[in-house]
Parts: sequence; C-alpha cells; structure tokens
Amino acid sequence: MGSRLGVLLIGSAGAVASTVVAGVELMKKGAPRLGMITETDLGQAVGVVACEDLVFAGWDLRNVDLYDAAWGHGVLPKDQLMTVEKELRAYKPWPGVTSDAFIPGDNGKNIVPASSFRDEIRIMREQVETWMKAQGLSRVVMVNLCSTERYIEPEEVHNSIAAFEAGLDKNDKRISPAMKYLYLAIMMGIPYANFTPSRSNVPALEKLSEDKGVPIAGEDGKTGQTLLKTVLAPAFRVRQLKVDGWYSTNILGNNDGRILHDPGSNKTKVTSKIGVLGSILGYEVPDHQVHIHYYRPRGDDKEAWDNIDVLGFVGAPMQIKVNFLCKDSILAAPLVIDLARLLDAAQRAGERGVQYQLSLFFKSPYKVAGKPLVHDLFEQHTILRSWVDKVSPKLKA
Amino acid sequence: MGSRLGVLLIGSAGAVASTVVAGVELMKKGAPRLGMITETDLGQAVGVVACEDLVFAGWDLRNVDLYDAAWGHGVLPKDQLMTVEKELRAYKPWPGVTSDAFIPGDNGKNIVPASSFRDEIRIMREQVETWMKAQGLSRVVMVNLCSTERYIEPEEVHNSIAAFEAGLDKNDKRISPAMKYLYLAIMMGIPYANFTPSRSNVPALEKLSEDKGVPIAGEDGKTGQTLLKTVLAPAFRVRQLKVDGWYSTNILGNNDGRILHDPGSNKTKVTSKIGVLGSILGYEVPDHQVHIHYYRPRGDDKEAWDNIDVLGFVGAPMQIKVNFLCKDSILAAPLVIDLARLLDAAQRAGERGVQYQLSLFFKSPYKVAGKPLVHDLFEQHTILRSWVDKVSPKLKA
Amino acid sequence: MGSRLGVLLIGSAGAVASTVVAGVELMKKGAPRLGMITETDLGQAVGVVACEDLVFAGWDLRNVDLYDAAWGHGVLPKDQLMTVEKELRAYKPWPGVTSDAFIPGDNGKNIVPASSFRDEIRIMREQVETWMKAQGLSRVVMVNLCSTERYIEPEEVHNSIAAFEAGLDKNDKRISPAMKYLYLAIMMGIPYANFTPSRSNVPALEKLSEDKGVPIAGEDGKTGQTLLKTVLAPAFRVRQLKVDGWYSTNILGNNDGRILHDPGSNKTKVTSKIGVLGSILGYEVPDHQVHIHYYRPRGDDKEAWDNIDVLGFVGAPMQIKVNFLCKDSILAAPLVIDLARLLDAAQRAGERGVQYQLSLFFKSPYKVAGKPLVHDLFEQHTILRSWVDKVSPKLKA
Amino acid sequence: MGSRLGVLLIGSAGAVASTVVAGVELMKKGAPRLGMITETDLGQAVGVVACEDLVFAGWDLRNVDLYDAAWGHGVLPKDQLMTVEKELRAYKPWPGVTSDAFIPGDNGKNIVPASSFRDEIRIMREQVETWMKAQGLSRVVMVNLCSTERYIEPEEVHNSIAAFEAGLDKNDKRISPAMKYLYLAIMMGIPYANFTPSRSNVPALEKLSEDKGVPIAGEDGKTGQTLLKTVLAPAFRVRQLKVDGWYSTNILGNNDGRILHDPGSNKTKVTSKIGVLGSILGYEVPDHQVHIHYYRPRGDDKEAWDNIDVLGFVGAPMQIKVNFLCKDSILAAPLVIDLARLLDAAQRAGERGVQYQLSLFFKSPYKVAGKPLVHDLFEQHTILRSWVDKVSPKLKA
Repeated sequence: MGSRLGVLLIGSAGAVASTVVAGVELMKKGAPRLGMITETDLGQAVGVVACEDLVFAGWDLRNVDLYDAAWGHGVLPKDQLMTVEKELRAYKPWPGVTSDAFIPGDNGKNIVPASSFRDEIRIMREQVETWMKAQGLSRVVMVNLCSTERYIEPEEVHNSIAAFEAGLDKNDKRISPAMKYLYLAIMMGIPYANFTPSRSNVPALEKLSEDKGVPIAGEDGKTGQTLLKTVLAPAFRVRQLKVDGWYSTNILGNNDGRILHDPGSNKTKVTSKIGVLGSILGYEVPDHQVHIHYYRPRGDDKEAWDNIDVLGFVGAPMQIKVNFLCKDSILAAPLVIDLARLLDAAQRAGERGVQYQLSLFFKSPYKVAGKPLVHDLFEQHTILRSWVDKVSPKLKA
Repeated sequence: MGSRLGVLLIGSAGAVASTVVAGVELMKKGAPRLGMITETDLGQAVGVVACEDLVFAGWDLRNVDLYDAAWGHGVLPKDQLMTVEKELRAYKPWPGVTSDAFIPGDNGKNIVPASSFRDEIRIMREQVETWMKAQGLSRVVMVNLCSTERYIEPEEVHNSIAAFEAGLDKNDKRISPAMKYLYLAIMMGIPYANFTPSRSNVPALEKLSEDKGVPIAGEDGKTGQTLLKTVLAPAFRVRQLKVDGWYSTNILGNNDGRILHDPGSNKTKVTSKIGVLGSILGYEVPDHQVHIHYYRPRGDDKEAWDNIDVLGFVGAPMQIKVNFLCKDSILAAPLVIDLARLLDAAQRAGERGVQYQLSLFFKSPYKVAGKPLVHDLFEQHTILRSWVDKVSPKLKA
Repeated sequence: MGSRLGVLLIGSAGAVASTVVAGVELMKKGAPRLGMITETDLGQAVGVVACEDLVFAGWDLRNVDLYDAAWGHGVLPKDQLMTVEKELRAYKPWPGVTSDAFIPGDNGKNIVPASSFRDEIRIMREQVETWMKAQGLSRVVMVNLCSTERYIEPEEVHNSIAAFEAGLDKNDKRISPAMKYLYLAIMMGIPYANFTPSRSNVPALEKLSEDKGVPIAGEDGKTGQTLLKTVLAPAFRVRQLKVDGWYSTNILGNNDGRILHDPGSNKTKVTSKIGVLGSILGYEVPDHQVHIHYYRPRGDDKEAWDNIDVLGFVGAPMQIKVNFLCKDSILAAPLVIDLARLLDAAQRAGERGVQYQLSLFFKSPYKVAGKPLVHDLFEQHTILRSWVDKVSPKLKA
Repeated sequence: MGSRLGVLLIGSAGAVASTVVAGVELMKKGAPRLGMITETDLGQAVGVVACEDLVFAGWDLRNVDLYDAAWGHGVLPKDQLMTVEKELRAYKPWPGVTSDAFIPGDNGKNIVPASSFRDEIRIMREQVETWMKAQGLSRVVMVNLCSTERYIEPEEVHNSIAAFEAGLDKNDKRISPAMKYLYLAIMMGIPYANFTPSRSNVPALEKLSEDKGVPIAGEDGKTGQTLLKTVLAPAFRVRQLKVDGWYSTNILGNNDGRILHDPGSNKTKVTSKIGVLGSILGYEVPDHQVHIHYYRPRGDDKEAWDNIDVLGFVGAPMQIKVNFLCKDSILAAPLVIDLARLLDAAQRAGERGVQYQLSLFFKSPYKVAGKPLVHDLFEQHTILRSWVDKVSPKLKA
C-alpha cells in the first residue's frame, strides 16, 4: 500500500502531537524506528503506510508552529530538535473548537470564527477538504490528542443520533468539542481514534459510526503506569498471588498535568486508570488507589511510583515497588502512528464501528457487544495478531 | 484421583522444604491456598491430589526436625508456626549424600553411612521403599531443593548411560549428589523435578529418563526477580521498546545466600538467571548484569532491585526501577506443590522424559529436541494450558 | 535521681502508647534499649529516671487492656508480645473526654461521666491524684498521644486565660479535648508534651503554663518522613544544591491513617509537615507537596516515598528518591520516653513554659519569643546538648 | 582579593575537569552559581577569587580540546555547551605523565617526551612557569582529577623524603603519576588537592609539604552516595537507631566507571567509600557493602541505590532505600572550585601541610596528628566555619 496517508491531529501543537510530527521527520533522517508495533512483521502483514508517506495536519487552540511547540514542551532533546527545525516550522495548526464547560482554563485563542455548532463543523470540514485536495490525499485518519475534558455521564442528547443532531442544531452545551470532532470524522468517512480519556464515543456517535461504516477506536492511550499494570496483573493471576492493595501515584509537570489539577478532568482520568485490574485478576483489588499530581519540576517526564502488596503461600505478604521514569509523549507518540496506520488498514479491510482488535492501545477500550472487555496486554496482543492474520490475505491481494 | 501422593524432598530441612511442609499443614487447618496454579480449574482438569493427600519425606544433611528447621529459617511468622508444632515435630530427615567437590562448607553430619556410591544408592532406595510401604503409597515424586552445587560443564562420565554407570562403580568424583538422587529417582520410576540450578540432568540421565519412561523437569525455580523479567520483557517486545541495559542485584541472608558466596555456586546461579532475556526479546541485551550478594539482615526475605533502561520513540531513553521485597521460600513453596502434582499427573498420562509443559516453573527450562525454548511467562502458560486440555480427557476417564 | 516517675498517656490504648508500655516491659526483660537519646551519656548527664522506674497510666476512649490493644495494633511481633502478656493485661485506661467537633468518627464509649467541662476536669484530677497516691508518686509528666484533632485557628476563647476559663464555665465547644488535658496538667503542675499535631498550646494555655511554672513542649513528634527532611535539607544547604521540588507521599493503614481521611484532621497534619523546609533552606521550595493516604494493607508500617529534585552546578537537575519502610509507633515510642524523662529533668531544673531545647523531638516546635525556630535536626541536637551542659551541674548536685 | 588565580587540573580533559571549565564559562554568561559553598557568605569572609578571575590549564593523556572533551563526556546538555564552544576550543591539555603499573588500559598518547622521572618533572615545571608568565599569574593551585590509580600500600620508597628523592633518581616504578604531580606542586609552592582516591600523600610527600609550607588536602571528593552516608549516619546516631546493615551499589557508565572495572582501581575506590560509617556511628556496621559496577547506559549519570537496615525501639527492624540519580561530574565540579579557592585562601592565611578544615570535601580526609578524623558532614561544616572565623580577620586586613 505505497500511497500516502493523511493524519489529522486534534491538539496538534500539544506535547504528544508535536512529538509525533517531529519524530516522523527525525525517522525520515535516520532516527531509530522504535516503539511501534507496526514496524514489525505485523505491520508488513497489513501493508501499513511507510513513515515517509505520512502527511500531518490538525487543529490547536494555540497558534504556534510545531517547532516552537515542540521546543516549549521539552520532550525531545534540543540538539535533536534543531535538526528538523525547517520541517517543523512548516506545520501551523488550524483554529479549532473549544468549550468553557468542558475544558478548564485558558488554552488559547486560535478558535474557529463561527456563529453556531453547525457553522463550526462546516468550517472544519472545509479545512480538511482543502488540505486533502492540496496534498492529493485520498485516505485520511483522525486522532484526538487534546487535553482531558471534564467527566460526564451521557444524557439524552448523547443517546440517539436524532437527539444529537438536534443538539447540534440548538448549540447544546452538553456537546463537547471532542464530540464535534468525532461527528465531523464520521460524516466525512474518516476513521477516528480517541487517545484521550475524554468521552467522545457517546451512544449516538457510536451508532453513527456503524451506520456510516467508519472504524473508530478508543479510549485513553495505554502508556506508562497503566501499561505496566496490565503486564504485572496477568503475572499475578498466573502465579495465583493475590493482590491485596495497589497504590499508584503519578507526578507530571506538562500541560496535561496542569489540566488534571481540575477536579473534573482528574476524575475523568482516574476513572479511566482504575478499571483495569478487576477484569484481569477476576476480583476487585481491595485497596486500589490512583493519584495524579501536577508537579512542575518533572516537566513532560512523567514519573509513576507504584506499591503493590501481594499475598503468597499461606497468606504471606510481599511487596513490589515500581518506579517508572518515563516520558509521557515518547510513550504515546509511536502508538499514535500505530493507530493511524491500523485504522487505515481497518478501513481498507472494510471494518466499521468500534475496532475491538485495537484494545491493545487503550486504558479503557471501547466495549463491543458480545465480546469480553480485555485489559491483559498479552491477550490484547493475541487478539490483534489474530485480526491481522484474518485480514492480511485480503489487504495483500 | 483421590488417592495419596508421596513427595520426596531433597534438602528437606531447608527453608523451602520446611515451608512446603509447614504450609501444607497450615492449609489443612484453613490457611489461604494461594500461590498454586494447581488450585485453579487447571488443577481440577488433570485431577491433582488434594493438599490433604500429600505425604512428605526426604533427606537432609542436618539432623533436625522440621519445626526446629522452620523456626530457624524464619520464613513464616512464629505465631503461625506454633499452630503446627506437633505436626512438624514428626518430620525428621533421612541421612543424605554430599560431596566436598560440589557443596562448599560444612552443611551437616547427617550422612548416609556408605562405603561406595553404589552403597549410598542402595541405602537410599531402602529408605524410600520402607517409607512407601509404611505409608501405603503407590505414587511418589521427588523434588530437589538442595543448596546450589558448584558449576560444571558435562564431561565424558556424564554423557552416556554406560559411562555414568561405570562412574558410579568407580566412585567418580565428578558425579554430584544431585545426579545420584536423580539416578535413584529414575531407577525407581519416580518423577523428578530439579528446583535448583545445580546441574543434574546431564545427557546420560536425560537419556535414562526417556529409556525408563520417567517424567523429569527443571531447572531452577522461577521465583522472584527472574519471574518479573519474564513478565516485563514480553511487554517491552510487544511495545517495541528496546532494552538497552538491565542491571539486577539481589540481596538475601538465608543459607542459600551464604552458599552463593562461593564463586562456583554463584556462577551456577547467575548463569541460570542471565539467559532469559535474549530469547524473549529476540536480541541480546547489551548490558545485562545480575549480581547476588549475601546480606545477613535480610534473612529469607530476598530483595531484588532492578534498573531497566529502555529506548523508546526515536531512541529516547527511559528508566524503570523495580524493587521486589519478596520472601524466597514463600514464592518457591507453592511451585513445589504444583510441580509434585503436575509430575504425578504427567506420569498418570503416560508422559516420559523432559516435561516441556512445565517450563512455566523454571528459570532455565530443560530443552526438548525440536521445540523452542520458551521463557515468556505467558507463552509458557499457554503451553501448559494446551497440555492440560490434551491430557485431561484421559486423566478424568 | 533514682526515684520513680509517673507517665500519663492521653490515648493510652493507641498504637504508640501501647508500644511505649509494652516496650518498657520488654526492655526490663532484656530487649535492646534503642531509639532513645536519653539512654546515652546525655541522659546520664541530667540524671534521667531508669526504665525500671517508669510507671504508666492514662486515658482512652476504648475500654481495652493494653495487651489486647497492642495485639490489635500489630506493631510488635506477636511472639515478642506474648512474653509480656501478664504485665500488659494489668493496664486498663481510664475513661477520657471527647468532642464530636474535633474528633471525627466513633472512637469508643469509655467516656468520663460528667455533666460539664468543669466536672470532666474535676473527675480526671481525681483519677490522677488517686493513682499518684496508690503508686506513691511525687513526680508525674503527661504526654498527648491521641489521634489528630481537626484543624483550628485560635479564636477569642483561646487567646486569654480569662476567656478560656470563662469558656470552660460555659462548655464552649471550641475548647477541644486536647486543651482540657493540657489545662488539667498545668493546674496540677504536671509537665506536658504534645506528641500530636492537634492544637493544644493556644495562647491562653501557653501563658498559663508560664504563670504556673510548668514546662510544656510540642508539637507533633518528628518520626519518619519529616525526620529525614530535617536531615537531608541541611545537607542540601551545606552543599548549596537548590531544592527545586519535593514531592512526599505517605501510606499508612493504622487508626491514625483512618482519621487522616477526615479532611480537617488531614489539614492539621499536612500543615505540620509542610513548614520545615523553608526555615532550613532559607527559601521556599517552589513545589513542596505532602500527601497522606490511608492504605489498609500497610497497617502500622507507615511507608513514605519522597522524590526530591535538586539543581546543582550551572543548574543541572538531579533526583533523589527515598523510600522509608518504617513503623510509625516504633519510631514514636522511644521519643515519648525521651520526652517524659527530659520534661521531668526540666522541671527539676526549674524550667517553665515552652521548652526550646526539646525542639529536636517535634515537627512543629512551639515558638519561643526571641529565639529562632529551628528545624535542622543537627542544630536542634546542638541546642539540646547545650542545655544539658548548662543544667547538668545543678541536677547532679 | 581581586587578583586572578591559576588553577592547574590533572586530567584536564576528563569529565569533571571539562565540566569545571565549561561551568565557569557558563557562569560568566549568567548560569546559576550553584553547588559552591564559596558562593555564600563563607566565601566572602575569606575573600575568595571571583569566577571571572579563575584561569585554567592542565595535563591530560588525551590530546583533545575541552569542547570536544565536554561534548564527548555528555555531562552538560549539548545546547548549553554550544553557547561556550569558542571559549572551550581554546583549552588544550599539556602532555602528562603516566604509568602502566598504576593506570590500567590505554588512556592516550599525549605523554611528556622525557627520558627519566627527573626529566618529566623538569618539563612539567617549565609548562607551568611558561603559562604563569604568559597569564601574568602569581597565585596558582593544583587539583588532581585523574582516573583512579591502582591500590597501593606505602613502601620504603614512599616513607621518607630521602628515599623518595632517591626513588625519583632511580625511576622507581612504585612512584605513581599522582605522586609526581604532588611532588611538582610542593616544590613549586603550589597548594594541592587530591580529588581522587589515588594514593598521592605518602608520608614522604606529606612531610615535604610541611617542610616547604605548602597547603595540601585530600582525598577522594565526597560527591554522591558517600555524601548521603555522612548525612544519614549522623541522624541515626542522634536518634539512636542502630544500623544493622548498609548495602550500597553504584552504576555508572563514564570513563571513571570503565577504569573501576580494574580490580586494583576498584579496591582503591571501595576502600575509600567504606570507612565513613564506623567513625560517625561509633561502632562498625555489621554488614556494610559497597559495590561499583560499570554500566554503559548510565553514562556520566551515576546512580546509587542504598538499602539501609536500622533497628529501632526494642530491636524492631526498619528499612530505608535511597535511589540517587545524580550526575557525578555535576556534583564534583563545584567542589573543585571551592577547593581551589579555599586552598588559595589557606595559603594566603599562612597555613601549611594538611588542611584539616577542608575535610568537608572528601570521602577519606587526610589525617592530622592530634585531631579526630571527622566524617559527619555537619561536624565538618562546623570545623570549616570555625576556621573561616579564625582566618577571616587576617585575610580581610
């Protein structure tokens, strides 16, 4: 599948998105191609697009080119970044949509000049169409990389396509920016991944994606601490060590962390992180705590400290401590590329609606009726591998 | 399979063995049955013997009853141990065999009074036969739980059955105690597991086990640090995070630790621990170090500290530190019970020679011709599960 | 000073108090005398009372003997505790005073049957006098070991002796249990230490202690994490390493931890822990966070994890992580004995009011007009040592 | 004391030395002046030379300018380094002296072309004199920053001035490079600090420094793990917590680490690190272990992991783990500047021989007859402060 793939990033000047674009430019110049499962035989089997053929664009509320953005986020070393300055300067985000109700604080003035929700969607559609034409793109995917929106429970407006469409007509404030982007994607036939914990796949939009035959996947990229949880918990299950308590704390100092100071956004995030253990272990862990704190000195270098109490033979207690000095955006960026490539493959393979085989990438995989929700990283890997085996003959043909 | 199973423990007054026996007594009185995969549906599927039907005996160079032994090792809390004093007092080890060449230091005087290797084996055979008769046992397994012997490379005497038999006739000092016990087991048709890193399955004995149709398994129980390695490494492979270095250090203060101060025994152990990463990751980790130090204050509470350096997207470095405050014998004991039960099931199912499906339990699984050596805990689990599915219809019938 | 010393413990069935009493009984039988500075030449210089001559009594809202109390708290190993069962059974707490406004949750029914604040104080005075007579005690000290009360800012009723006395007459709810005990101590001429962060030394009572010539000291025993802070921060100052952030989290699962789930009590505690750095370093640490979480599996074994970010030469960042697996009550108990002995020495030396030289023992030492507030452990030690040098000639004479 | 100070660095292209010089250039341009006690009022009191007035030169076996050297060591971020490229390019090391017997491996070809020891010393003296003249310097100090030499016990040749001089005449191989530099310094009246654990202050040279009236100080800069030891141990002493074991391990991947793979050099280093605890605590710690491992992925970012076992009240065990992610050269460099300035002040104050007040900077302070060897960081600080108070009136006058 040699042809090019357009990748639309929501929050394109953020830490993850700017790392994705900078990383692709660096890899074109020889940086090691690590962190992506689509760079193995698995990617070859479904004919994923080469790094060289990825084309990026996107929206951000801050009007800043991607070189300045990446420099400011401090994810990649500055001397490494300097080698792709020219390329990154060329990327400038389109104005996007926002909402005081869903996104705390001032996040920038680069906002679509629209008079209504319908007008916003129309303008964004034109942005995409103009870009596709200019770039000569026929295939495009979209990935949500925005900061975490406030936690919501779906209401009537979110529960049926009709109610949602009516809500758009009435500028219903319960419709979040994330939902508008997803609506846009589905209506344009663009596969969509939600890498954030923000709730976008409300029932109305999940139904719409199936009706329109658009692959979607989410939610909340499984990067650091939760990745390790879904690795260690299966081992405890195999060894029948009972998890008696699991205390997790996270410190991070990037913009993501700042937004998580808002209790509403924090709740969205913690809810997403807390659910993984029970389904893997087969019982609820009595004391499972997850804390996230904004801590400026850490910058983008998110740090997790976990203390796990397990009971072994005849109830004897043992402790495991894990200290993960990770880089949030470094862990996230390659998954964004994997998702873009695999969503494209899914569309080519004729898949529609929620993509179960992409659970591997998420903290809270979207549920699929009739299939078990799987958090165990290795089971998720087996599911992806089986899907690849199934579709690869078709995609190669 | 309601009938009883005899379990012969080599090193029966050691920390692991005394914990096994004390644990079984405690579980009979209601202690939680944790740490054993054979206590799940997997055990039921092959009809494993109940805890209540396990009968123990064994050899030790120290002539001490199992209550005093367990008290001295300090593995289980003393108030818990007191509740099974009467039961443990009844267990007294038989005299065993030793060797200055293989086992450093003075390890006790409880030695078989024999004039030759052949005489030693004859006496031990009588010990076992007398006990089986007294207990009315028809099924027996043997597990090696002795301290680590010195590292050896197999020589001629170890390489053919004929040479080995001739070596026994000549009291050849290159035949270690561990080999004598294994020889005894095979000649008596008793399934055998080597839970230590000592080299017992030399080619001569592996061939003999196949000829005689006796299931054997080994070697070196996968308990703490190595267990976690075979859990984390598969995750790095799935996520394509490149392991750039892995520094592991262990401190422990039990008798096992003291013996590992001997450079020969230490080499045996480190060799066993170092091999797991390459086969899981598909490349050799450039800086993989494993250190083991005797550190008295820790007692049996072995502690591992691991620092793992991984390279992510575009080569960005990240670090993971794992501090495992484990109890060596608590992790080991339930695996001994699992092995005893599953070796018995294997014998009932007609298996012979090296038991590939038991790789799950070992740091350095015995190789089987024509089958890949698997270290990944989850792949090992899948292999065991498949075997259970295969043999369970027969065993239930 | 061979004669005996009575020690009154508020919260005498709590984890710390029961450990104090059990520990003294164990030391009488040969347990190592560790953790107490008064067991060094410093104690000899002021003629402290021997362990054998300490006599305990006290109040607790739970009516439980100290053996059952200590057993339940799980601080000392059970086999060790059993050796002093008889001695501990003899200790039964007196009924005490409580307050819904200050102490969250149900903490027991062992409450002084009194109709008014004045009546409560009268009854408690009788308890003490009866006991002193029965034991033949002429010297007594009191230590507050109760759970943390809710945070308060002093109001009018707390600010003058007259207003406080009037408040007692009117049963003013802003007068906390801790204040009543302190009032009782002062009126009886009993030296008093506040080992908790509860606010008892309001201006009215501090003035009263001076008027009556009673030594007092507080507040909040400096045990685990804060102890290490006041040790590491002086080193950073000496080396001119700039502390750019200090993230501290604590997990503990004892009753103390449960009460700290109450936001009011948590605030009292965190406020006490947060203040130490600035005064040692000479600048406010930009990101100094302290978190405390109730985490059941840890029991009394409080665990602290600290991440410290320091800037060195030309601003280069470095990190130090400290993981303290401590036992809260084990750290606290010997300080209680130190305080009892040194308050007694202070009284014998004619000291009155706040005892500056005891700052060493506290997270938030009481301020003394005209003297700098010192948090640096080593400066505090020097201050104590100087005081000892000053008073020891008098006390020996 | 506004005039300029020359600083001679032995090993001037090494990680520490290149960081010292780069750092001074960066500080001249506004980088924060951290890590140096001489930047506080203490430095002002003895009139230390300003950063702007420090002039560097030195010897190195590698013929590489300091920009390339610093770039290769990877201590400072590359974008920071770039800002002082021009300044660093100007520094090129002089050829130095070496010895196969003392320095393992090939360390470069930049060697003084001399036919004898006496000839080496003559050439180096000319290097220094030429440079002083060119720079117009009247005051100079020397600091040894070379890699660790092999461990030696002093023999006859090291024990008297006469024997040493005779040894120089005979090119005695037991005279190490470090001793030659020290001899040179003393003969030129240049104060000298030994920042390495190499043995240079043999009795002959210590005597010579007194005879010639030259201040000297050493040895082995107290940077990371040992710094923390001399901070924590005093706290354990104050709190009477008994240290039952202290396990320290270090991983580092710079050239220093590579050389410590040599068992002889490793012994020199470990010996230097192991001695500090006993003198602070007043008893030998039963299990004090220090391990150092070369681990490439860490580069110059030395990492230490310490596990400390302490016994508290009635012998209860507790554990403290410290993980120090430091940068070896970042911790060392400011101490080199402190030493240079304070040795200069000492010379101006008329001090001669071993400078006791500089113990603060060393793992193994040189002994001074009649004075206690002090390791406690805070006592060392008090000693330095007292000396400053004593000499500052004279130095200001």
